[in-house]
Amino acid sequence: MKILVLNAGSSSVKYQVFAMEEQRVLAKGLVDRIGEAGSEIASHREALERMIQHLQAEKIIHGGKGIDAIGHRVVHGGERFHEPALIDADVMAAISEMVPLAPLHNPANLEGIEVAKKLFPDVPQVAIFDTAFHQSMPPVAFRYALPKSLYHKHKVRRYGFHGTSHRYVAHQAAHYLHVELSSLNLITLHLGNGCSATAIAGGKSVDTSMGVTPLEGLVMGTRCGDVDPALHFYLQRETGLSNAELETLLNKQSGLKGICGVSDMREVQQRAESGDETAQLAEAMFAYRVKKYVGAYMAVLGKVDAIVFTGGIGEHSPRIRELVCANLEGLGLFLDTQRNHSRASGILEFQQPDAAIKLLVIPTDEELEIARSTALLV
Amino acid sequence: MKILVLNAGSSSVKYQVFAMEEQRVLAKGLVDRIGEAGSEIASHREALERMIQHLQAEKIIHGGKGIDAIGHRVVHGGERFHEPALIDADVMAAISEMVPLAPLHNPANLEGIEVAKKLFPDVPQVAIFDTAFHQSMPPVAFRYALPKSLYHKHKVRRYGFHGTSHRYVAHQAAHYLHVELSSLNLITLHLGNGCSATAIAGGKSVDTSMGVTPLEGLVMGTRCGDVDPALHFYLQRETGLSNAELETLLNKQSGLKGICGVSDMREVQQRAESGDETAQLAEAMFAYRVKKYVGAYMAVLGKVDAIVFTGGIGEHSPRIRELVCANLEGLGLFLDTQRNHSRASGILEFQQPDAAIKLLVIPTDEELEIARSTALLV
Repeated sequence: MKILVLNAGSSSVKYQVFAMEEQRVLAKGLVDRIGEAGSEIASHREALERMIQHLQAEKIIHGGKGIDAIGHRVVHGGERFHEPALIDADVMAAISEMVPLAPLHNPANLEGIEVAKKLFPDVPQVAIFDTAFHQSMPPVAFRYALPKSLYHKHKVRRYGFHGTSHRYVAHQAAHYLHVELSSLNLITLHLGNGCSATAIAGGKSVDTSMGVTPLEGLVMGTRCGDVDPALHFYLQRETGLSNAELETLLNKQSGLKGICGVSDMREVQQRAESGDETAQLAEAMFAYRVKKYVGAYMAVLGKVDAIVFTGGIGEHSPRIRELVCANLEGLGLFLDTQRNHSRASGILEFQQPDAAIKLLVIPTDEELEIARSTALLV
Repeated sequence: MKILVLNAGSSSVKYQVFAMEEQRVLAKGLVDRIGEAGSEIASHREALERMIQHLQAEKIIHGGKGIDAIGHRVVHGGERFHEPALIDADVMAAISEMVPLAPLHNPANLEGIEVAKKLFPDVPQVAIFDTAFHQSMPPVAFRYALPKSLYHKHKVRRYGFHGTSHRYVAHQAAHYLHVELSSLNLITLHLGNGCSATAIAGGKSVDTSMGVTPLEGLVMGTRCGDVDPALHFYLQRETGLSNAELETLLNKQSGLKGICGVSDMREVQQRAESGDETAQLAEAMFAYRVKKYVGAYMAVLGKVDAIVFTGGIGEHSPRIRELVCANLEGLGLFLDTQRNHSRASGILEFQQPDAAIKLLVIPTDEELEIARSTALLV
């Protein structure tokens, strides 16, 4: 069975084709700068046609045949989608209804689905939602302390994102530890350009750091994460910034970039090592805020079996893992410095021998998780 | 030595007179509805004149003599005030500079000081700041992940409030436990109409839940506490609310009141007991959010000696204390149900025998703390 995984953004399309029997990637690619000035690619349709040329050249598809199903990453599934959904007109309408909650992402995801349906009319298509894994959260975690009409009328609640990644590493952890996922309590830390933490009880998400949107929670590359909700009013009185300017500031000019000028953790760490104090602060704040969520979710879960680091930073920065786990021996976290620095590919286990709480690095693979979910559904 | 403690709000003045030798309250009172329609009290000056009549009738002052010093509660001391300050023109100017950070409170505090100086021209006056105790926080805790110019140019940072209360109960805890405060790690939970949590390491505040303003952090009577910083933009697109309307909504129509319609925890709990599901959710969310801060601050502190509950809810709701501590045995918290329900006046210790982490109820007394600080300075 061959599954095509599509991740359509506003100006890019990422794709991968998996042979599911061997769980092997047959082809992958990225078409970007869609619709930008000077770009050859004017539309998502042209992007997918280019992808088809590539897949024909690789002999994966022949005259439009060869793909058994397509899995689409969709950012926002609201409260409706708790799991992947076979795409029909009703599902399309629902994704469209969620546009106000994800005005940048859902329209691009829809565009990708529409074009894929035209180019592969006979292939079943599946939507996999970033929010779905977190739909198991209880109201105590997903509700905000806001007038209840905002929830009932305007859908204001914590949704959470990166669900595919949190779900994938949770399954991997269960497999690696030889334990049923349904009996595992985990804290999963997806630390990439976007960052989120999830508390998982008995295999189900019970709380997560991102909220109505992916702006809440941890410090990210350019996003601020948690701030005082009255910041906006103070700042607008002080500076006269418009809502649109403030939204851009909090999403694009904050996070690591706001603190020290660069958004890439590798560069932040290089600068920190050469003595740049703003970069040192950025790195320290990043880890400190993760540490606070680890503590909060330990309190939520009561008992934790493992803490899982994933995403570009989670997988590749032993330094961040060390800062996050530092001084938490009282809570049962004992990091083994040498293991933490070992350059294993695949899963890395880096707690000290006999420590009760496992510390794991598990490389994420959202595309594979989407492919699996798609295969399972069709 | 007699100390007059003044807490001047925008439409009220609270006062207490202490005899410091015996730490005894000689008189106390409240003049409210200042400047409101139909009120006899047109101004802060008239309110303080009424207070003077009362203190003369009680024979505490005679012809303007009898008070040795006046301690004023001032909400916002910015980064300048780490401790109480003897009030002079320079201090007045500094409090005035902080008005944009506390537009409702600092002007009223200033008004109280100005009137008190006119009515008691020969009495030394001291300002005690709600923010001062938290000035020991390190940058990693007080900075937000925002463009650094917002901190340097616009003073955007975590300040924290309720400092007088957190400081007072920390001192009381040290005294009660017969340990130097400088060797104690505490989590202090001020749960009243406003609510905040503070992590105290070696007697000093190292993190606290309120931020630039008192809106951040825990669920409060009518304040929302933590929300997604992009909520504002989504909500304004959805509803067309103005900034001013949204600011009022988050400060006055949210929190317990937003979730279930009433802001007083006693009423919330009565309704919850009689089966009102929105009240049950409000109570559960209130406790859940405190629990998350307890976990976060355990991670910040590494080792915790005691958790202190104070404020109206913290002191008088065993149910909330139970919900907060529930299921935290793995983190070293063992609540003794019977002790937790005992109606001791004064300090209550309610962990199980031999539990490593003490659980304490310590009644707060911000006025006494202000009186002590004032006496110490003059």
